[in-house]
Amino acid sequence: MLGQDESGCCPTLPAAPLDEEQAVELAKVFKALGDPVRLRLLSMIASREGGEICVCDLTPAFDLSQPTISHHLKLLRQAGLIDCERRGTWVYYWLLPGTIDKLAGVLTRTGQPAASEGSP
Amino acid sequence: MLGQDESGCCPTLPAAPLDEEQAVELAKVFKALGDPVRLRLLSMIASREGGEICVCDLTPAFDLSQPTISHHLKLLRQAGLIDCERRGTWVYYWLLPGTIDKLAGVLTRTGQPAASEGSP
Repeated sequence: MLGQDESGCCPTLPAAPLDEEQAVELAKVFKALGDPVRLRLLSMIASREGGEICVCDLTPAFDLSQPTISHHLKLLRQAGLIDCERRGTWVYYWLLPGTIDKLAGVLTRTGQPAASEGSP
Repeated sequence: MLGQDESGCCPTLPAAPLDEEQAVELAKVFKALGDPVRLRLLSMIASREGGEICVCDLTPAFDLSQPTISHHLKLLRQAGLIDCERRGTWVYYWLLPGTIDKLAGVLTRTGQPAASEGSP
């Protein structure tokens, strides 16, 4: 049960040291989040009512070229945070909640609700 | 209240798009976590009974030089995830729970407990 949450499914960072394999896997996802453009893209996708968003609604929010935006979206997809589907002219993106829930769990301290009001 | 959690203190990624300033700040911390060595160091510090750990107990877990470990610890410190104090020969490290709680909150979807068993 080293570094596992109560359900035994996922490592939790503060419960016990991560092993090397767990750390390599998790670091890939955190690295994908370690860029402001990708964080904003992910938040736009995650907060979209209806659950999906057209790339044509993402691009205008940034002063960046379409290929640059597509590159950032590809990195989020490779990290397992989002998926997409082409329909006609446009590509549509949606959140894969499993990955983001896993990361939130990894960072949640035992006995601490995430974003607890009492945290320092 | 754009992108804020219920207490209004912190952005939550899936509640609303992050603004540029929030994204820049958060990306710095996620970037610090985007490395397997730093993730393992942080989990060793976070899971330490008594709340702090000597650098002399961190280094032997890695096949890396003391300066390399110190560099990774410095990046975690600059991200606000840990702090340290020198006492005699050794430096002691401890977790700053506010930063990790904030990140967990950012990643927690509205109405979803972190690491929910029912997530896909």
